[in-house]
Amino acid sequence: MTDTTWINGLQTASLDPRDRGLQYGDGLFETIAVFGGHPQCIEDHLDRLQHSAARLKFPDLDMAGLEAEIQRAAGNLEKAVLKLILTRGESARGYRPPEQPEPTRIIMTSSWPLWPGEYYLDGVRSRVCDQRLAIQPALAGMKHLNRLEQVLARAEWDDPGIAEGVMLDTEDRLVCGTMSNLYLLSGSDLLTPSLARCGVKGVMRKQVQKAAATLGLQWHESDLRMEDALNADEMYFSNALIGLWPVRELDEHRYTRVDGGKRLIATLAAQGVRQCDVS
Amino acid sequence: MTDTTWINGLQTASLDPRDRGLQYGDGLFETIAVFGGHPQCIEDHLDRLQHSAARLKFPDLDMAGLEAEIQRAAGNLEKAVLKLILTRGESARGYRPPEQPEPTRIIMTSSWPLWPGEYYLDGVRSRVCDQRLAIQPALAGMKHLNRLEQVLARAEWDDPGIAEGVMLDTEDRLVCGTMSNLYLLSGSDLLTPSLARCGVKGVMRKQVQKAAATLGLQWHESDLRMEDALNADEMYFSNALIGLWPVRELDEHRYTRVDGGKRLIATLAAQGVRQCDVS
Repeated sequence: MTDTTWINGLQTASLDPRDRGLQYGDGLFETIAVFGGHPQCIEDHLDRLQHSAARLKFPDLDMAGLEAEIQRAAGNLEKAVLKLILTRGESARGYRPPEQPEPTRIIMTSSWPLWPGEYYLDGVRSRVCDQRLAIQPALAGMKHLNRLEQVLARAEWDDPGIAEGVMLDTEDRLVCGTMSNLYLLSGSDLLTPSLARCGVKGVMRKQVQKAAATLGLQWHESDLRMEDALNADEMYFSNALIGLWPVRELDEHRYTRVDGGKRLIATLAAQGVRQCDVS
Repeated sequence: MTDTTWINGLQTASLDPRDRGLQYGDGLFETIAVFGGHPQCIEDHLDRLQHSAARLKFPDLDMAGLEAEIQRAAGNLEKAVLKLILTRGESARGYRPPEQPEPTRIIMTSSWPLWPGEYYLDGVRSRVCDQRLAIQPALAGMKHLNRLEQVLARAEWDDPGIAEGVMLDTEDRLVCGTMSNLYLLSGSDLLTPSLARCGVKGVMRKQVQKAAATLGLQWHESDLRMEDALNADEMYFSNALIGLWPVRELDEHRYTRVDGGKRLIATLAAQGVRQCDVS
Protein backbone atom coordinates (compact mmCIF):
# COMPACT_ATOMS: atom_id res chain seq x y z
CA MET A 1 0.00 0.00 0.00
CA THR A 2 1.52 3.29 -1.08
CA ASP A 3 0.75 6.88 -0.09
CA THR A 4 1.15 6.32 3.59
CA THR A 5 2.80 8.75 6.02
CA TRP A 6 4.48 8.14 9.34
CA ILE A 7 5.69 10.85 11.70
CA ASN A 8 8.06 9.81 14.47
CA GLY A 9 7.03 6.21 13.99
CA LEU A 10 3.27 6.78 14.07
CA GLN A 11 1.07 6.49 11.02
CA THR A 12 -0.31 10.02 10.76
CA ALA A 13 -0.34 12.84 8.25
CA SER A 14 -0.52 15.58 10.86
CA LEU A 15 2.54 17.76 11.28
CA ASP A 16 2.66 20.74 13.63
CA PRO A 17 3.31 23.77 11.39
CA ARG A 18 5.70 25.09 14.07
CA ASP A 19 8.12 22.41 12.92
CA ARG A 20 11.34 24.05 11.70
CA GLY A 21 11.18 21.94 8.56
CA LEU A 22 8.28 24.12 7.41
CA GLN A 23 9.33 27.36 9.13
CA TYR A 24 12.85 27.52 7.67
CA GLY A 25 13.44 24.43 5.55
CA ASP A 26 15.61 23.37 8.49
CA GLY A 27 16.01 19.75 7.54
CA LEU A 28 17.11 17.09 5.08
CA PHE A 29 15.54 14.43 2.93
CA GLU A 30 16.28 11.16 1.16
CA THR A 31 14.32 9.73 -1.74
CA ILE A 32 14.70 5.98 -1.75
CA ALA A 33 13.70 3.34 -4.31
CA VAL A 34 11.96 0.32 -2.80
CA PHE A 35 11.95 -3.03 -4.62
CA GLY A 36 10.49 -6.21 -3.19
CA GLY A 37 10.25 -4.69 0.26
CA HIS A 38 13.89 -3.62 0.26
CA PRO A 39 15.00 0.03 0.35
CA GLN A 40 17.76 0.28 -2.27
CA CYS A 41 21.19 1.63 -1.29
CA ILE A 42 19.90 2.16 2.24
CA GLU A 43 23.41 2.37 3.74
CA ASP A 44 24.41 5.13 1.33
CA HIS A 45 21.21 7.06 1.98
CA LEU A 46 21.64 6.84 5.75
CA ASP A 47 25.32 7.69 5.46
CA ARG A 48 24.59 10.87 3.52
CA LEU A 49 21.80 11.79 5.92
CA GLN A 50 24.04 11.32 8.95
CA HIS A 51 26.89 13.36 7.49
CA SER A 52 24.57 16.16 6.38
CA ALA A 53 22.83 16.22 9.77
CA ALA A 54 26.23 16.65 11.41
CA ARG A 55 27.03 19.54 9.07
CA LEU A 56 23.74 21.19 10.09
CA LYS A 57 24.66 20.54 13.76
CA PHE A 58 21.71 18.27 14.43
CA PRO A 59 22.12 16.11 17.55
CA ASP A 60 23.44 12.58 17.05
CA LEU A 61 20.84 10.48 15.32
CA ASP A 62 19.61 7.03 16.28
CA MET A 63 20.62 5.54 12.93
CA ALA A 64 19.55 1.99 13.82
CA GLY A 65 16.12 3.22 14.87
CA LEU A 66 15.81 5.26 11.69
CA GLU A 67 16.77 2.29 9.53
CA ALA A 68 14.26 0.11 11.35
CA GLU A 69 11.50 2.63 10.64
CA ILE A 70 12.46 2.75 6.97
CA GLN A 71 12.58 -1.05 6.73
CA ARG A 72 9.18 -1.30 8.39
CA ALA A 73 7.62 1.22 6.01
CA ALA A 74 9.21 -0.49 2.99
CA GLY A 75 8.44 -4.05 4.13
CA ASN A 76 5.23 -4.65 2.19
CA LEU A 77 5.96 -2.51 -0.85
CA GLU A 78 6.76 -4.28 -4.10
CA LYS A 79 7.94 -1.25 -6.08
CA ALA A 80 7.56 2.21 -4.61
CA VAL A 81 9.17 5.48 -3.62
CA LEU A 82 9.98 6.08 0.03
CA LYS A 83 10.83 9.62 1.05
CA LEU A 84 12.37 10.34 4.43
CA ILE A 85 12.36 13.89 5.76
CA LEU A 86 14.36 14.70 8.87
CA THR A 87 13.83 18.15 10.38
CA ARG A 88 15.34 19.88 13.42
CA GLY A 89 11.93 19.55 15.06
CA GLU A 90 9.89 22.23 16.79
CA SER A 91 11.26 25.27 18.55
CA ALA A 92 10.32 28.66 19.86
CA ARG A 93 9.98 31.41 17.25
CA GLY A 94 13.23 32.57 15.62
CA TYR A 95 16.09 31.18 13.56
CA ARG A 96 18.10 30.08 16.57
CA PRO A 97 18.10 26.28 16.85
CA PRO A 98 16.88 24.95 20.20
CA GLU A 99 19.58 23.84 22.63
CA GLN A 100 18.31 20.28 22.61
CA PRO A 101 16.55 19.72 19.31
CA GLU A 102 14.28 16.73 18.95
CA PRO A 103 14.37 16.00 15.22
CA THR A 104 11.15 15.06 13.47
CA ARG A 105 11.22 11.93 11.30
CA ILE A 106 8.72 11.84 8.46
CA ILE A 107 8.42 8.84 6.14
CA MET A 108 6.15 9.01 3.11
CA THR A 109 5.58 6.30 0.55
CA SER A 110 4.32 6.89 -2.97
CA SER A 111 3.65 4.86 -6.08
CA TRP A 112 6.52 4.22 -8.48
CA PRO A 113 6.66 6.73 -11.36
CA LEU A 114 6.06 5.28 -14.81
CA TRP A 115 8.84 6.36 -17.14
CA PRO A 116 8.89 5.26 -20.77
CA GLY A 117 11.31 2.39 -21.44
CA GLU A 118 12.77 4.45 -24.30
CA TYR A 119 14.30 6.80 -21.74
CA TYR A 120 16.81 4.04 -21.01
CA LEU A 121 17.15 2.67 -24.53
CA ASP A 122 17.14 5.79 -26.71
CA GLY A 123 17.82 8.56 -24.20
CA VAL A 124 15.77 11.54 -23.05
CA ARG A 125 15.16 15.03 -24.30
CA SER A 126 16.45 17.75 -22.01
CA ARG A 127 16.91 21.49 -21.85
CA VAL A 128 19.13 24.06 -20.18
CA CYS A 129 17.28 25.95 -17.43
CA ASP A 130 17.40 29.72 -17.05
CA GLN A 131 17.28 29.41 -13.27
CA ARG A 132 20.80 29.30 -11.85
CA LEU A 133 22.12 27.67 -8.69
CA ALA A 134 23.65 29.98 -6.09
CA ILE A 135 27.14 29.26 -4.86
CA GLN A 136 26.92 28.21 -1.21
CA PRO A 137 29.65 25.83 -0.05
CA ALA A 138 28.03 25.57 3.42
CA LEU A 139 25.06 23.73 1.89
CA ALA A 140 26.68 22.10 -1.14
CA GLY A 141 26.30 18.35 -1.55
CA MET A 142 23.45 18.02 0.96
CA LYS A 143 19.89 17.07 0.14
CA HIS A 144 18.39 19.76 2.36
CA LEU A 145 14.88 21.20 2.35
CA ASN A 146 15.76 24.58 0.76
CA ARG A 147 14.76 23.68 -2.79
CA LEU A 148 13.21 26.81 -4.30
CA GLU A 149 15.88 26.95 -7.00
CA GLN A 150 14.88 23.47 -8.19
CA VAL A 151 11.18 24.34 -8.02
CA LEU A 152 11.70 27.47 -10.14
CA ALA A 153 13.87 25.56 -12.62
CA ARG A 154 11.33 22.75 -12.98
CA ALA A 155 8.53 25.31 -13.44
CA GLU A 156 10.20 26.56 -16.62
CA TRP A 157 8.80 23.87 -18.90
CA ASP A 158 5.50 22.10 -19.48
CA ASP A 159 6.45 19.91 -22.43
CA PRO A 160 5.98 16.33 -21.15
CA GLY A 161 8.52 15.22 -23.76
CA ILE A 162 11.30 16.95 -21.84
CA ALA A 163 12.42 14.67 -19.06
CA GLU A 164 14.97 16.79 -17.25
CA GLY A 165 16.60 20.22 -17.21
CA VAL A 166 20.29 21.04 -16.86
CA MET A 167 21.27 23.61 -14.24
CA LEU A 168 24.29 25.92 -14.25
CA ASP A 169 25.57 27.89 -11.28
CA THR A 170 25.58 31.69 -11.19
CA GLU A 171 29.12 31.60 -12.62
CA ASP A 172 28.19 29.50 -15.68
CA ARG A 173 29.46 26.13 -14.51
CA LEU A 174 27.48 22.98 -15.25
CA VAL A 175 26.23 21.51 -11.96
CA CYS A 176 23.39 19.00 -12.27
CA GLY A 177 19.87 18.32 -13.44
CA THR A 178 16.92 19.73 -11.50
CA MET A 179 16.55 16.35 -9.76
CA SER A 180 19.65 14.49 -10.85
CA ASN A 181 23.42 14.37 -11.18
CA LEU A 182 24.97 14.83 -14.58
CA TYR A 183 27.78 13.11 -16.50
CA LEU A 184 29.66 13.59 -19.74
CA LEU A 185 31.38 10.77 -21.60
CA SER A 186 34.38 11.88 -23.62
CA GLY A 187 36.37 8.98 -25.01
CA SER A 188 37.06 6.81 -21.99
CA ASP A 189 36.69 9.72 -19.55
CA LEU A 190 33.53 10.06 -17.48
CA LEU A 191 33.31 13.68 -16.36
CA THR A 192 30.98 14.92 -13.65
CA PRO A 193 30.70 18.41 -12.13
CA SER A 194 32.37 19.19 -8.83
CA LEU A 195 29.73 19.60 -6.11
CA ALA A 196 31.86 21.75 -3.82
CA ARG A 197 29.87 24.95 -4.42
CA CYS A 198 26.29 23.73 -4.95
CA GLY A 199 24.34 20.70 -6.07
CA VAL A 200 23.40 17.47 -4.33
CA LYS A 201 25.76 14.52 -4.02
CA GLY A 202 23.40 11.81 -5.20
CA VAL A 203 23.38 8.27 -3.88
CA MET A 204 23.17 6.91 -7.44
CA ARG A 205 26.26 8.96 -8.33
CA LYS A 206 28.33 6.60 -6.18
CA GLN A 207 26.84 3.63 -8.07
CA VAL A 208 27.68 5.30 -11.38
CA GLN A 209 31.26 5.82 -10.21
CA LYS A 210 31.47 2.11 -9.36
CA ALA A 211 30.01 1.13 -12.73
CA ALA A 212 32.47 3.44 -14.49
CA ALA A 213 35.36 1.69 -12.77
CA THR A 214 34.00 -1.70 -13.86
CA LEU A 215 33.88 -0.46 -17.44
CA GLY A 216 37.41 0.96 -17.32
CA LEU A 217 36.24 4.57 -17.59
CA GLN A 218 38.32 7.30 -15.93
CA TRP A 219 36.27 9.24 -13.36
CA HIS A 220 36.84 13.01 -13.16
CA GLU A 221 35.13 15.49 -10.84
CA SER A 222 35.88 18.96 -12.11
CA ASP A 223 34.53 22.33 -13.19
CA LEU A 224 32.62 21.90 -16.44
CA ARG A 225 31.01 24.38 -18.82
CA MET A 226 28.31 24.19 -21.46
CA GLU A 227 30.95 23.80 -24.18
CA ASP A 228 32.11 20.61 -22.43
CA ALA A 229 28.57 19.28 -22.63
CA LEU A 230 28.30 20.15 -26.32
CA ASN A 231 31.70 18.60 -27.10
CA ALA A 232 31.05 15.38 -25.19
CA ASP A 233 30.28 12.07 -26.92
CA GLU A 234 27.42 11.30 -24.57
CA MET A 235 25.60 12.80 -21.62
CA TYR A 236 23.64 11.18 -18.75
CA PHE A 237 21.47 11.98 -15.76
CA SER A 238 21.27 9.83 -12.65
CA ASN A 239 19.29 9.77 -9.44
CA ALA A 240 18.14 7.24 -6.87
CA LEU A 241 14.85 6.64 -8.66
CA ILE A 242 15.66 6.81 -12.36
CA GLY A 243 18.99 5.03 -12.14
CA LEU A 244 20.60 6.43 -15.29
CA TRP A 245 19.18 8.07 -18.39
CA PRO A 246 21.26 8.84 -21.47
CA VAL A 247 20.48 12.18 -23.10
CA ARG A 248 19.62 12.31 -26.77
CA GLU A 249 18.75 16.00 -27.04
CA LEU A 250 19.90 19.03 -25.07
CA ASP A 251 17.87 21.92 -26.50
CA GLU A 252 18.95 22.02 -30.16
CA HIS A 253 21.99 19.79 -29.65
CA ARG A 254 21.72 16.10 -30.51
CA TYR A 255 23.83 13.33 -29.02
CA THR A 256 24.14 10.70 -31.73
CA ARG A 257 25.35 7.92 -29.45
CA VAL A 258 23.99 6.31 -26.30
CA ASP A 259 26.30 3.23 -26.41
CA GLY A 260 28.30 4.18 -23.34
CA GLY A 261 25.06 4.94 -21.52
CA LYS A 262 23.68 1.51 -22.35
CA ARG A 263 26.83 -0.12 -20.99
CA LEU A 264 26.55 1.93 -17.78
CA ILE A 265 22.87 1.00 -17.43
CA ALA A 266 23.66 -2.71 -17.87
CA THR A 267 26.48 -2.46 -15.33
CA LEU A 268 24.26 -0.64 -12.84
CA ALA A 269 21.65 -3.36 -13.29
CA ALA A 270 24.34 -5.95 -12.56
CA GLN A 271 25.17 -4.01 -9.38
CA GLY A 272 21.58 -4.49 -8.23
CA VAL A 273 20.10 -1.19 -9.41
CA ARG A 274 16.78 -2.79 -10.35
CA GLN A 275 15.35 0.19 -12.25
CA CYS A 276 18.24 -0.20 -14.72
CA ASP A 277 17.22 -3.77 -15.52
CA VAL A 278 15.58 -2.77 -18.80
CA SER A 279 17.13 -5.20 -21.25
CA MET B 1 -4.68 34.36 23.71
CA THR B 2 -1.41 33.70 21.94
CA ASP B 3 0.10 30.49 20.54
CA THR B 4 -2.84 29.67 18.33
CA THR B 5 -2.59 28.24 14.81
CA TRP B 6 -5.02 28.45 11.92
CA ILE B 7 -4.66 26.59 8.64
CA ASN B 8 -6.82 27.76 5.74
CA GLY B 9 -9.10 29.57 8.16
CA LEU B 10 -9.59 26.70 10.60
CA GLN B 11 -8.07 26.60 14.04
CA THR B 12 -5.85 23.53 13.82
CA ALA B 13 -2.18 22.68 14.17
CA SER B 14 -2.29 19.78 11.74
CA LEU B 15 -0.47 20.25 8.45
CA ASP B 16 -0.16 17.51 5.84
CA PRO B 17 3.58 16.86 5.48
CA ARG B 18 3.05 16.55 1.71
CA ASP B 19 2.64 20.31 1.67
CA ARG B 20 5.30 21.85 -0.57
CA GLY B 21 6.14 24.33 2.17
CA LEU B 22 7.75 21.46 4.07
CA GLN B 23 8.89 19.42 1.07
CA TYR B 24 10.82 22.19 -0.67
CA GLY B 25 10.43 25.40 1.34
CA ASP B 26 8.10 26.36 -1.52
CA GLY B 27 6.47 29.33 0.16
CA LEU B 28 6.71 32.71 1.82
CA PHE B 29 6.15 34.23 5.23
CA GLU B 30 5.43 37.49 6.98
CA THR B 31 6.14 38.25 10.62
CA ILE B 32 3.74 40.91 11.82
CA ALA B 33 3.62 42.95 15.03
CA VAL B 34 0.17 43.15 16.60
CA PHE B 35 -0.75 46.01 18.96
CA GLY B 36 -4.19 46.53 20.42
CA GLY B 37 -5.72 44.04 18.02
CA HIS B 38 -4.21 45.76 14.98
CA PRO B 39 -1.63 44.11 12.70
CA GLN B 40 1.03 46.79 12.14
CA CYS B 41 1.96 47.82 8.57
CA ILE B 42 -0.51 45.25 7.26
CA GLU B 43 -0.67 46.85 3.80
CA ASP B 44 3.10 46.68 3.41
CA HIS B 45 3.21 43.06 4.58
CA LEU B 46 0.45 42.03 2.18
CA ASP B 47 2.02 44.01 -0.63
CA ARG B 48 5.37 42.25 -0.24
CA LEU B 49 3.63 38.88 0.03
CA GLN B 50 1.63 39.49 -3.14
CA HIS B 51 4.65 40.63 -5.14
CA SER B 52 6.78 37.73 -3.93
CA ALA B 53 4.02 35.22 -4.66
CA ALA B 54 3.85 36.56 -8.21
CA ARG B 55 7.64 36.14 -8.56
CA LEU B 56 7.27 32.50 -7.43
CA LYS B 57 4.41 32.11 -9.95
CA PHE B 58 1.77 31.35 -7.34
CA PRO B 59 -1.80 31.78 -8.61
CA ASP B 60 -3.48 35.12 -7.88
CA LEU B 61 -4.20 35.42 -4.18
CA ASP B 62 -7.44 36.46 -2.52
CA MET B 63 -5.80 39.40 -0.75
CA ALA B 64 -9.01 40.62 0.90
CA GLY B 65 -9.70 37.16 2.29
CA LEU B 66 -6.14 36.88 3.55
CA GLU B 67 -6.33 40.25 5.26
CA ALA B 68 -9.64 39.30 6.86
CA GLU B 69 -8.07 36.13 8.28
CA ILE B 70 -5.15 38.12 9.68
CA GLN B 71 -7.45 40.74 11.19
CA ARG B 72 -9.57 38.00 12.77
CA ALA B 73 -6.51 36.28 14.28
CA ALA B 74 -5.13 39.59 15.55
CA GLY B 75 -8.45 40.93 16.81
CA ASN B 76 -8.19 39.95 20.47
CA LEU B 77 -4.42 40.24 20.89
CA GLU B 78 -3.09 43.18 22.88
CA LYS B 79 0.60 42.78 21.98
CA ALA B 80 1.74 39.73 20.08
CA VAL B 81 3.54 38.31 17.06
CA LEU B 82 1.50 37.04 14.14
CA LYS B 83 3.28 34.93 11.57
CA LEU B 84 1.68 34.17 8.24
CA ILE B 85 3.07 31.36 6.08
CA LEU B 86 1.81 30.96 2.55
CA THR B 87 2.89 27.80 0.70
CA ARG B 88 2.19 26.51 -2.80
CA GLY B 89 0.04 23.82 -1.16
CA GLU B 90 0.12 20.09 -1.75
CA SER B 91 1.17 18.35 -4.93
CA ALA B 92 2.26 15.06 -6.34
CA ARG B 93 5.89 14.08 -5.67
CA GLY B 94 8.54 16.11 -7.49
CA TYR B 95 9.72 19.70 -7.83
CA ARG B 96 7.26 20.54 -10.57
CA PRO B 97 4.56 22.87 -9.27
CA PRO B 98 1.01 21.63 -9.81
CA GLU B 99 -0.87 23.18 -12.70
CA GLN B 100 -3.50 24.63 -10.41
CA PRO B 101 -1.89 25.10 -7.01
CA GLU B 102 -4.11 25.68 -4.01
CA PRO B 103 -1.89 27.66 -1.65
CA THR B 104 -1.96 26.83 2.04
CA ARG B 105 -2.44 29.72 4.47
CA ILE B 106 -1.02 29.23 7.95
CA ILE B 107 -1.40 31.85 10.67
CA MET B 108 0.39 31.43 13.98
CA THR B 109 0.30 33.80 16.92
CA SER B 110 2.96 33.95 19.63
CA SER B 111 3.69 36.02 22.70
CA TRP B 112 5.62 39.25 22.26
CA PRO B 113 9.37 38.86 22.83
CA LEU B 114 10.76 40.74 25.83
CA TRP B 115 13.76 42.77 24.74
CA PRO B 116 15.66 44.93 27.23
CA GLY B 117 14.76 48.62 27.00
CA GLU B 118 18.50 49.39 26.81
CA TYR B 119 18.56 47.90 23.31
CA TYR B 120 16.76 51.03 22.15
CA LEU B 121 18.46 53.52 24.47
CA ASP B 122 22.10 52.35 24.53
CA GLY B 123 22.27 50.05 21.52
CA VAL B 124 22.96 46.32 21.16
CA ARG B 125 26.04 44.15 20.96
CA SER B 126 26.47 42.36 17.65
CA ARG B 127 28.93 40.21 15.76
CA VAL B 128 29.91 39.38 12.21
CA CYS B 129 28.77 35.87 11.22
CA ASP B 130 31.04 33.38 9.45
CA GLN B 131 28.08 32.04 7.47
CA ARG B 132 27.76 33.89 4.17
CA LEU B 133 24.71 34.57 2.04
CA ALA B 134 24.70 33.08 -1.45
CA ILE B 135 24.10 35.37 -4.40
CA GLN B 136 20.74 34.48 -5.92
CA PRO B 137 18.93 37.36 -7.64
CA ALA B 138 15.91 35.11 -8.37
CA LEU B 139 15.14 34.93 -4.65
CA ALA B 140 16.60 38.23 -3.43
CA GLY B 141 14.34 40.55 -1.45
CA MET B 142 11.67 37.91 -0.74
CA LYS B 143 10.84 36.47 2.67
CA HIS B 144 10.72 32.89 1.42
CA LEU B 145 10.90 29.67 3.38
CA ASN B 146 14.46 28.69 2.37
CA ARG B 147 16.21 30.00 5.46
CA LEU B 148 19.01 27.54 6.24
CA GLU B 149 21.64 30.26 5.83
CA GLN B 150 20.00 32.30 8.58
CA VAL B 151 19.62 29.23 10.80
CA LEU B 152 23.33 28.37 10.44
CA ALA B 153 24.32 32.00 11.06
CA ARG B 154 22.18 32.28 14.18
CA ALA B 155 23.58 28.97 15.46
CA GLU B 156 27.06 30.50 15.60
CA TRP B 157 26.62 32.19 18.97
CA ASP B 158 25.13 31.34 22.36
CA ASP B 159 26.00 34.55 24.23
CA PRO B 160 22.62 36.04 25.23
CA GLY B 161 24.31 39.45 25.35
CA ILE B 162 24.70 39.43 21.58
CA ALA B 163 21.42 40.55 20.05
CA GLU B 164 22.08 40.17 16.34
CA GLY B 165 24.69 39.04 13.81
CA VAL B 166 25.79 40.80 10.63
CA MET B 167 25.81 38.77 7.42
CA LEU B 168 28.01 39.29 4.38
CA ASP B 169 27.47 37.73 0.98
CA THR B 170 29.92 35.26 -0.57
CA GLU B 171 31.66 38.21 -2.25
CA ASP B 172 32.26 40.12 1.01
CA ARG B 173 29.47 42.68 0.72
CA LEU B 174 27.48 43.67 3.79
CA VAL B 175 23.88 42.52 3.37
CA CYS B 176 21.81 42.38 6.56
CA GLY B 177 21.45 40.94 10.04
CA THR B 178 20.33 37.33 10.49
CA MET B 179 16.78 38.60 11.08
CA SER B 180 17.00 42.27 10.19
CA ASN B 181 17.98 44.94 7.72
CA LEU B 182 21.07 47.00 8.38
CA TYR B 183 21.93 50.71 8.13
CA LEU B 184 25.00 52.89 8.48
CA LEU B 185 24.83 56.55 9.40
CA SER B 186 27.68 58.61 7.98
CA GLY B 187 27.20 62.34 8.49
CA SER B 188 23.74 63.00 7.11
CA ASP B 189 23.83 59.95 4.81
CA LEU B 190 21.87 56.84 5.76
CA LEU B 191 23.41 53.93 3.86
CA THR B 192 21.76 50.54 3.49
CA PRO B 193 22.92 47.52 1.46
CA SER B 194 21.44 46.85 -1.95
CA LEU B 195 19.17 43.78 -1.78
CA ALA B 196 19.42 42.91 -5.48
CA ARG B 197 21.53 39.77 -4.94
CA CYS B 198 20.32 38.40 -1.59
CA GLY B 199 18.70 39.49 1.66
CA VAL B 200 15.10 40.28 2.58
CA LYS B 201 13.44 43.62 1.85
CA GLY B 202 11.99 44.26 5.29
CA VAL B 203 8.69 45.99 5.89
CA MET B 204 10.29 48.11 8.64
CA ARG B 205 12.98 49.20 6.14
CA LYS B 206 10.33 51.24 4.35
CA GLN B 207 9.40 52.90 7.65
CA VAL B 208 13.07 53.66 8.30
CA GLN B 209 13.35 55.23 4.86
CA LYS B 210 10.34 57.41 5.66
CA ALA B 211 11.80 58.41 9.04
CA ALA B 212 15.13 59.24 7.40
CA ALA B 213 13.36 61.60 5.00
CA THR B 214 11.61 63.31 7.92
CA LEU B 215 14.99 63.83 9.60
CA GLY B 216 16.60 65.19 6.42
CA LEU B 217 18.93 62.20 6.02
CA GLN B 218 19.99 61.16 2.49
CA TRP B 219 18.97 57.57 1.75
CA HIS B 220 21.45 55.45 -0.26
CA GLU B 221 21.03 51.84 -1.33
CA SER B 222 24.41 50.60 -2.50
CA ASP B 223 27.11 47.95 -2.21
CA LEU B 224 28.75 48.23 1.21
CA ARG B 225 31.75 46.49 2.76
CA MET B 226 32.94 45.84 6.30
CA GLU B 227 35.19 48.91 6.13
CA ASP B 228 32.09 51.04 5.53
CA ALA B 229 30.58 49.64 8.71
CA LEU B 230 33.75 50.34 10.68
CA ASN B 231 34.04 53.87 9.30
CA ALA B 232 30.39 54.78 9.92
CA ASP B 233 29.28 57.06 12.76
CA GLU B 234 26.45 54.75 13.74
CA MET B 235 24.92 51.44 12.77
CA TYR B 236 21.37 50.09 13.17
CA PHE B 237 19.27 46.97 12.68
CA SER B 238 15.56 47.00 11.88
CA ASN B 239 12.78 44.50 11.49
CA ALA B 240 9.02 44.37 11.82
CA LEU B 241 9.18 43.28 15.45
CA ILE B 242 12.15 45.14 16.92
CA GLY B 243 11.52 48.40 15.10
CA LEU B 244 15.07 49.77 15.20
CA TRP B 245 18.07 48.99 17.37
CA PRO B 246 21.24 51.07 17.35
CA VAL B 247 24.46 49.03 17.55
CA ARG B 248 27.00 49.83 20.24
CA GLU B 249 29.44 46.98 19.58
CA LEU B 250 30.28 45.03 16.44
CA ASP B 251 32.75 42.38 17.60
CA GLU B 252 35.69 44.47 18.91
CA HIS B 253 34.51 47.69 17.29
CA ARG B 254 32.64 50.22 19.41
CA TYR B 255 30.21 52.81 18.12
CA THR B 256 30.48 55.76 20.47
CA ARG B 257 27.25 57.44 19.37
CA VAL B 258 23.63 56.37 19.17
CA ASP B 259 22.19 59.90 18.77
CA GLY B 260 21.06 59.42 15.18
CA GLY B 261 19.54 56.10 16.17
CA LYS B 262 17.56 57.72 18.97
CA ARG B 263 16.20 60.30 16.57
CA LEU B 264 15.19 57.57 14.12
CA ILE B 265 13.52 55.60 16.93
CA ALA B 266 11.56 58.67 18.06
CA THR B 267 10.53 59.39 14.46
CA LEU B 268 9.45 55.77 13.92
CA ALA B 269 7.39 55.99 17.12
CA ALA B 270 5.75 59.15 15.79
CA GLN B 271 4.94 57.22 12.58
CA GLY B 272 3.00 54.71 14.71
CA VAL B 273 5.70 52.05 15.15
CA ARG B 274 4.60 51.27 18.70
CA GLN B 275 7.61 49.15 19.66
CA CYS B 276 9.77 52.25 19.17
CA ASP B 277 7.75 54.18 21.74
CA VAL B 278 10.43 53.73 24.41
CA SER B 279 10.92 57.28 25.65
